[in-house]
Amino acid sequence: MPRYQGYFDTKILDPFTLEKAYELVKYEHESHFAGYYDLPTTSLALCEEVKIFAKSVEEYETIAIVGIGGSSLGIKAIDRLLRPKTLHAKKIIYFENSDPITISKEIANIHIEKTLFIIISKSGGTVETISIFKRLISTFEITLEDSKQILIVSDEGSSLSKFADHYGLKRFVVPSNVGGRFSILSAVGVVPLTLAGFDVVKVLGGAKSFLENFWQRKEEHLLQKATYYVSHAERYPINVLFSYSDMFEEFGKWVVQLWGESLGKRNRRGERVGLTPISLIGSVDQHSFLQLIIEGPLNKTVTFMNIEHSEDELMIPEITLPFLEKSDFVNGESFNALINAQCRATMQSVLESGVSVDEITWERIDEASVGEMILYYELLTSLAGSLLEINTYDQPGVEHGKQILEGYFSKKTELA
Amino acid sequence: MPRYQGYFDTKILDPFTLEKAYELVKYEHESHFAGYYDLPTTSLALCEEVKIFAKSVEEYETIAIVGIGGSSLGIKAIDRLLRPKTLHAKKIIYFENSDPITISKEIANIHIEKTLFIIISKSGGTVETISIFKRLISTFEITLEDSKQILIVSDEGSSLSKFADHYGLKRFVVPSNVGGRFSILSAVGVVPLTLAGFDVVKVLGGAKSFLENFWQRKEEHLLQKATYYVSHAERYPINVLFSYSDMFEEFGKWVVQLWGESLGKRNRRGERVGLTPISLIGSVDQHSFLQLIIEGPLNKTVTFMNIEHSEDELMIPEITLPFLEKSDFVNGESFNALINAQCRATMQSVLESGVSVDEITWERIDEASVGEMILYYELLTSLAGSLLEINTYDQPGVEHGKQILEGYFSKKTELA
Repeated sequence: MPRYQGYFDTKILDPFTLEKAYELVKYEHESHFAGYYDLPTTSLALCEEVKIFAKSVEEYETIAIVGIGGSSLGIKAIDRLLRPKTLHAKKIIYFENSDPITISKEIANIHIEKTLFIIISKSGGTVETISIFKRLISTFEITLEDSKQILIVSDEGSSLSKFADHYGLKRFVVPSNVGGRFSILSAVGVVPLTLAGFDVVKVLGGAKSFLENFWQRKEEHLLQKATYYVSHAERYPINVLFSYSDMFEEFGKWVVQLWGESLGKRNRRGERVGLTPISLIGSVDQHSFLQLIIEGPLNKTVTFMNIEHSEDELMIPEITLPFLEKSDFVNGESFNALINAQCRATMQSVLESGVSVDEITWERIDEASVGEMILYYELLTSLAGSLLEINTYDQPGVEHGKQILEGYFSKKTELA
Repeated sequence: MPRYQGYFDTKILDPFTLEKAYELVKYEHESHFAGYYDLPTTSLALCEEVKIFAKSVEEYETIAIVGIGGSSLGIKAIDRLLRPKTLHAKKIIYFENSDPITISKEIANIHIEKTLFIIISKSGGTVETISIFKRLISTFEITLEDSKQILIVSDEGSSLSKFADHYGLKRFVVPSNVGGRFSILSAVGVVPLTLAGFDVVKVLGGAKSFLENFWQRKEEHLLQKATYYVSHAERYPINVLFSYSDMFEEFGKWVVQLWGESLGKRNRRGERVGLTPISLIGSVDQHSFLQLIIEGPLNKTVTFMNIEHSEDELMIPEITLPFLEKSDFVNGESFNALINAQCRATMQSVLESGVSVDEITWERIDEASVGEMILYYELLTSLAGSLLEINTYDQPGVEHGKQILEGYFSKKTELA
């Protein structure tokens, strides 16, 4: 399982603040204000249900997800992380953005007889999702009535759920107290990932045991990190996650949404608060962003994340190329040893430059570690949100833009 | 061509500072301290040379780039932007990161008889690049002597150039006064992109005319933007590029490297300066990062970028789905109209929240606009760097980590 090591000074942290963060999060859970704390347990039954249901749709070889934001980022994160060790998983394709070039390209790749569509939207009112869904219905001349090719994942009573019932489509429910960006362990993630063949039960197991440890005060590093980040928010407004494997690219995007959208809020005194997340991938971003971390303004914390053992033991051959002997120091090593050493070396140089650093080391990428890491970031976010005295689970700032958007088009309709 | 509109107060800017920025950049050019200003002109001859050379390697259907950072980001950016309108371009695959899973996957996709390898490294000392090159040599049993399957792009006199000459490999030279992240219009980009079939001459044309306008003081908005960003660096330490098309994903990463690595430096008084770049893609990141921009701390500037006319006129069908009528307001519109309206609506809501905003509108994605936008960001970076009183073109902060890395392995060798 992942190991955690902080290199910032935790002695300066006020123990009462840590206690307060813990109590507030516990209250969120016990009052059912936030529902994601229940998912590692409650979703187990859902997993079993989906596994039985899977037999009725096993003819479909590809799963097409239509969803955006919290309805796609988490699925993509787990898909990418676990695919190298889940060799027989079905292909998943994602319809996410309203960019026509991407949509057309994905449509061209679809083998319609072999594709199961899962439409995911908590509210049913997501204009990108519904518009793409219409495009798919039209292009492939999909008959909606009792179609077994379309599954719906949405809130109970939402417009999308009513739509599903109208046409007799199979649907799965997201608990109403689980927000989009905290929903990956609900039906949002469980349904597509189980149908694709990933071992979601093990993911839930990893999540559950980390959560239990947290409630039993065995994960104090998490309280310390949240408290450190919030109490240094003015000094270090930027939190960097520097992950050493391409497999973390989508996980990083999931963290960015979780952290950015949850914490960027007006607090109860009306003040603008929040922390800005940045996700980097090593070693690529050593050649891009690292210089800024090391010599630029000291306004960032950095979390290094790496994997001790890779699924792939690809070696760097023992070849000496004339004039290029300078790189021979890694000859006979595995690429995984190289990338891990790059992580350690970079971390050491970043530490020496005076930046606040911590480290997450995965023994290997497996289902339980993925589940643990999801809970790790969700809990960290909830703790930080409670210390910032905000509602971690809403997103009032983005509503206005949606109204402006509707205004543009309705004005046009009126003028026509 | 792209149009520019700033919504921040330029009247507050000191005209002497603007003048100083312009003069410093002009001096960099005229003294040949930085060589990228010459590339839009000098690379034209290179294009012609590569076009002739192309005939001798036309049997290769795929181009494999082995390079990282400045040796891959710019190529990927142009490749992604221009591919939808360059239908017959050869496939390019990228060997970039030392992640074994990615390398193995790319290797498995290679059809060796049909693949031309281009090894790109200014110095020749990039450990990722050389290690992956060795892996390819070993896996495919490539004979180096006089191989026409391997091209080298490197500095004159570098270890990689010496290696090329040793084996009689065709090589192309990067001018020594052109840094990696400013090298896209040198042989680094010209060679692979021309060989793949992209119209690089037109890219250079767009770059050249923007540069000429800039020297003739017809692009004052650029001076204003650089001056505004630098003079507000403490208040707005984060600069967001919010691009409304998936095609900008790699371009955004190129900008992040250019801006972050160039400006994150100690200035001549030893102070840590710099500005933190973030690249977002709309509308996807409206569902992730936007909330933080609108309600979080006012510590960001935002540049919105969109494309008026898409290569793809995919429409949202005129379908009304029961209970989902709320999204009908975009029925009969193109997806491109939707994404553009989303950009405008988001920009308006961000502006209303008090954030400093500017806007870049591309009429369409074409070669000249790509060339112009490359120079736009390179000049903006040079102007900001000159105002920050730093060397925009070096990256001294990343050297230490490389030494630590070597130390790890040589220690192991000594112990063994």
